[in-house]
Amino acid sequence: MATVPKVSQEYSDARRRQILDGARRAFAHHGYEGATVVRLEESVGLSRGAIFSYFGSKWNLFYALAEEDQHRVAELWLEEGFTAVLRWVLDQRPEWIGVYLEVHRQLRTNQSLREQWMRRSPDVNERLRAHVREQQERGELRDDLSPDDIGRFLGLIIDGLVLNASVGAEYDLEALLKLIVAAIGPQ
Amino acid sequence: MATVPKVSQEYSDARRRQILDGARRAFAHHGYEGATVVRLEESVGLSRGAIFSYFGSKWNLFYALAEEDQHRVAELWLEEGFTAVLRWVLDQRPEWIGVYLEVHRQLRTNQSLREQWMRRSPDVNERLRAHVREQQERGELRDDLSPDDIGRFLGLIIDGLVLNASVGAEYDLEALLKLIVAAIGPQ
Repeated sequence: MATVPKVSQEYSDARRRQILDGARRAFAHHGYEGATVVRLEESVGLSRGAIFSYFGSKWNLFYALAEEDQHRVAELWLEEGFTAVLRWVLDQRPEWIGVYLEVHRQLRTNQSLREQWMRRSPDVNERLRAHVREQQERGELRDDLSPDDIGRFLGLIIDGLVLNASVGAEYDLEALLKLIVAAIGPQ
Repeated sequence: MATVPKVSQEYSDARRRQILDGARRAFAHHGYEGATVVRLEESVGLSRGAIFSYFGSKWNLFYALAEEDQHRVAELWLEEGFTAVLRWVLDQRPEWIGVYLEVHRQLRTNQSLREQWMRRSPDVNERLRAHVREQQERGELRDDLSPDDIGRFLGLIIDGLVLNASVGAEYDLEALLKLIVAAIGPQ
């Protein structure tokens, strides 16, 4: 009986990486809708068969990129503070940020996608919540509001910056940081 | 020589109103792209000839609605305060808010539209700037930042709420208002 050749984990990881990087370029360049299968193939350098054997669908591919971003943002937040997160958002290419807005529209009209999206990365959210709670206990953040209230506020600011960044508007961080510190710092 | 019959100002204002209201419904229901000429005709109850004799193009029609919103928001801000603005955003139908996101994507890829958009309503912006300056002089707002810094911050929060509202996410205003007051109030 013939055995199915098994690719090494290393090979498989490298292919995954190649697909994600290529897809990110294709989405940033053509938008989510505009990134057709042919364009994804060109940008990734692999056939549709290979791409979709790793990620199942175009949506899953985008979702994996969004999860990567979310983990990156959470790590920055935990390790370097919220300022690093703001800088990261401002450093992104407007084209890539714009893909999030495009996808937002799909979330708005597709209930099951939206539920999947809202439930993503509960572990990351729990770590951020614990981080805010610790900062409150150390007296670095105001403690008359819940960690969720503070987290939602910072999330709102990130969303606002995303909307600005998507049209290439520049933003001076210095004044913004003063305002944020006054908002969430000890009162 | 025949004279062209002249419609009264009153008639003309009523038609303009009818077109704007119908177009708003059509955009909210079908999105900007999805609001075809046929759907605009149905929703407005007038022919394309009548509609475009008042507004020239679909973009101009949307632009007029966006200007209406901006004037409404500015009036609320000047007369009832920023809290009223936040409530207004949260009261909008997610479908209508979503149209702004759709249009944002067009602004991103079309330089001349973007420039027109950025320059819109300079008079309104000047009135808001003067309003913030007066509040700073009365000691109601911090005065170590410029009115533009404070205005941009509040604009960022509105943009963040817009992004949230477009997917129908609910937002509790109470904690948000405490955070905003701490951010922009006297330090």
